[in-house]
Amino acid sequence: MAALELDVVGIGNAMVDVLARTDDGFLTAQGLVKGTTALIDAARAESLYGQMGSGIEMSGGSVANTIAGVASLGGSGAYIGKVRDDQLGGVFAHDLRSIGVRFATPASTSGPATARCLILVTPDAQRTMNTYLGACVDLGPEDIDGSLLDAAQVTYLEGYLFDPPRAKAAFRGAADIAHKAGRKVSLSLSDPFCVERHRADFRTLVHHHIDILFANEIEICSLYETKDFAAAVAAVRGECDIAVLTRSAQGSVIITPREEVAVAAASVAKVVDTTGAGDLYASGFLFGLTHGMALAACGRLGSLCAAEIIGHFGARPETSLKELAKKAGIPI
Amino acid sequence: MAALELDVVGIGNAMVDVLARTDDGFLTAQGLVKGTTALIDAARAESLYGQMGSGIEMSGGSVANTIAGVASLGGSGAYIGKVRDDQLGGVFAHDLRSIGVRFATPASTSGPATARCLILVTPDAQRTMNTYLGACVDLGPEDIDGSLLDAAQVTYLEGYLFDPPRAKAAFRGAADIAHKAGRKVSLSLSDPFCVERHRADFRTLVHHHIDILFANEIEICSLYETKDFAAAVAAVRGECDIAVLTRSAQGSVIITPREEVAVAAASVAKVVDTTGAGDLYASGFLFGLTHGMALAACGRLGSLCAAEIIGHFGARPETSLKELAKKAGIPI
Repeated sequence: MAALELDVVGIGNAMVDVLARTDDGFLTAQGLVKGTTALIDAARAESLYGQMGSGIEMSGGSVANTIAGVASLGGSGAYIGKVRDDQLGGVFAHDLRSIGVRFATPASTSGPATARCLILVTPDAQRTMNTYLGACVDLGPEDIDGSLLDAAQVTYLEGYLFDPPRAKAAFRGAADIAHKAGRKVSLSLSDPFCVERHRADFRTLVHHHIDILFANEIEICSLYETKDFAAAVAAVRGECDIAVLTRSAQGSVIITPREEVAVAAASVAKVVDTTGAGDLYASGFLFGLTHGMALAACGRLGSLCAAEIIGHFGARPETSLKELAKKAGIPI
Repeated sequence: MAALELDVVGIGNAMVDVLARTDDGFLTAQGLVKGTTALIDAARAESLYGQMGSGIEMSGGSVANTIAGVASLGGSGAYIGKVRDDQLGGVFAHDLRSIGVRFATPASTSGPATARCLILVTPDAQRTMNTYLGACVDLGPEDIDGSLLDAAQVTYLEGYLFDPPRAKAAFRGAADIAHKAGRKVSLSLSDPFCVERHRADFRTLVHHHIDILFANEIEICSLYETKDFAAAVAAVRGECDIAVLTRSAQGSVIITPREEVAVAAASVAKVVDTTGAGDLYASGFLFGLTHGMALAACGRLGSLCAAEIIGHFGARPETSLKELAKKAGIPI
């Protein structure tokens, strides 16, 4: 039997998104900062849900969205994350497995419910997220299936994993396992508030343990405590093999110790909901990287995937990204 | 204190939709008849869900969709239906209450889970539905809150209520209560297979107990066992005060004992998913009727609401139907 070979294994906070349209007034009344992610407890989750409008439920979770995108491109992926054995946990597991992603982390049989992210989408298509971590707090080092990490070219981790304490230990252990297997370790900084909560840890990580870093402009500036993007670029250069910095409509820039590659954003007829833009950019980039594409092509594929996801509601692809890439003339 | 006054109270099978895109081959392989609704048991629901793709969850239920549409038009509505006290039951209740619909039917605390409808949407935008009735089998006459029926101009019922046996008794009791209060009783025939299952009952109902009937072309032809739409129109004329017959892109026709009003379909840029088309037509029609509009105007408002719902995924309005009506020059 051939040994298992995977493109990407992702580890993240497993959650179901609850998306509802709202207006700026509601964000203000609730004290929410547009475009960011707040951590909320069970009581606040109940209260906020009670006040927000009719929603739709979709599987989410930053890294899980990325892995779903890799699968939609035709890549092979696995996911490690913790749900509860409840209805939404079942939905989350189904939605990954149905697209061919390996997902076998045992669900909790007691404790908090499956995590939810209450996502408020304003008319400007910006999303403001409120995460109740729920069962994610039960992810621990014992859940890290080393055989997946051994098998995957890239182990992809989200900064959000530093919020539940045991997941942080799982994160560090996973990075060690992947590196011992000669594999690459990749991190997304996730959110500016998340960077603020864990800045020192993230800087150490990026310097010592991360091969491929994803961050948007605000996150990388926060990491290096500067308001100047060029200064952040200078700070991150050489810290890891590849730093991929996304800048919304201004495209992205890929930084390596020796080069800097600028990539334009892909055009979108109408931006409907920016939820998942960064996650899906990472799908395209990591798929490209694990299939031997040049950095510029990886970035173009990332931009294309991000453009698909912001053209509709929700953070999972609505169409085959593989077909989309073919139509765009990217041979995959 | 002023007495409660409502436009419409709806009674139906309360369920959460699970929508996924698929292709014709999957329908064939699963033995499904496109455009219809099949009743499935728990084992089949699990098996089908396991084989269908990644989905999105949205509150559904035919009559619940209609009441949500009435609320979106600015009307007052209440809903009676049975969920379980589980996560999806909570989602269903939230989504009605968050838009101002009264919903106070006690959730079951034991027995089957909240009902689900597995909806497969093909590239031609047709929806094929598979309903697991779950907790709906626990709706009984004791759940019918007479004060709501007394207060509502129209009590609106779905033919699907004849599938769970105790709901059938609840249905008959509700019609009696509404008529004793001098109110109108309305029925949707729901689905051609549903008509086949309950044809004799439905004919008796329509003849004796229904004031306002909704049916599409296939359903009304099935009710009167004819392949000729004109013959079905002749058969239903005089059977109830108003029969509203919808014909997809060919619009609708409103039949009373004295007149016949033809209404054109509203234009749609792109039909994405026909789920909820009939439900939302009923929203517009019943809102118009309970606000003193002429029959032709009721039909136009119904067509407009149906056009909104088929322009996107899912059977609950994405935008304010009240605003949409205003933009279309329908003063409400």
